[in-house]
Amino acid sequence: MSVIAINNRPIAPIYLEDLKVGDITETKAFTVTRDMIISFAKQYDPQPMHLDEDAAHDTIFGELVGSGWQTLAVTMRMLVDARLLGSTPLVGAELKDIRFHAPMRPGDILRASAEIMDIRPSNSRPDRGLMDLRVTTKNSEGMTLVTQSWSLVVPCR
Amino acid sequence: MSVIAINNRPIAPIYLEDLKVGDITETKAFTVTRDMIISFAKQYDPQPMHLDEDAAHDTIFGELVGSGWQTLAVTMRMLVDARLLGSTPLVGAELKDIRFHAPMRPGDILRASAEIMDIRPSNSRPDRGLMDLRVTTKNSEGMTLVTQSWSLVVPCR
Repeated sequence: MSVIAINNRPIAPIYLEDLKVGDITETKAFTVTRDMIISFAKQYDPQPMHLDEDAAHDTIFGELVGSGWQTLAVTMRMLVDARLLGSTPLVGAELKDIRFHAPMRPGDILRASAEIMDIRPSNSRPDRGLMDLRVTTKNSEGMTLVTQSWSLVVPCR
Repeated sequence: MSVIAINNRPIAPIYLEDLKVGDITETKAFTVTRDMIISFAKQYDPQPMHLDEDAAHDTIFGELVGSGWQTLAVTMRMLVDARLLGSTPLVGAELKDIRFHAPMRPGDILRASAEIMDIRPSNSRPDRGLMDLRVTTKNSEGMTLVTQSWSLVVPCR
């Protein structure tokens, strides 16, 4: 198992044959602001706990928290920026077992990691395969916010 | 099994005891624009197929398509607007088996449906329970874009 240095990948395509089970990508940090949380909520998840501190106070969260969908979107952004597959696009086939352990708060500094759990050829398409990843998103206190499993489509060489 | 009329719910809380397996919520339509796709991509998924028609042409999609994360976020927006649980907030515990069948395109008119598959009390918290939903997102041609399963936390009466 090896941890790949952050943003240390060439901007060149990575193919299925280049991948190794156990390899881990660690992303750079991403700071979440109150404005980002409210802006995302207005567009995609307009619920009291994501829109306004006073309204959030009366919910089970007791304070303003980001939409879980935004935590997932920020996780994607961090892994795109980390060039998980070099210049090969990240194309999801399936997302599984997304668990929300704690909400994202204004000012949180997030980081994600992605560990390769499995690599396999496609049954139907000889020119591509699938890579399974275990993705974890944490805040700067080391608290896990979200865990999930991804199956990505990866071209063969 | 009954299909609940679109946006026909009172703005009052819905509790675990009010739910029935087999009930289906159908949302209103939501139109996805090119600007929305590019704006989301710049913030959360800056990859060629989501940012620019020319760059998208050289990807496996062959044209500009929305991020899968945005299709999911729009689905959330439609179900929030449909007041799936009246004034009770939609709080996700787990999301499972998210499958991307087809990408979202500029101009697509989306609709979602959510069918209650299971209702159960919480093992650890007597004041709440869990509702499992099967969520399907389609475009106006009836093509399924995404299917997924949600477990939501629902308070007891």
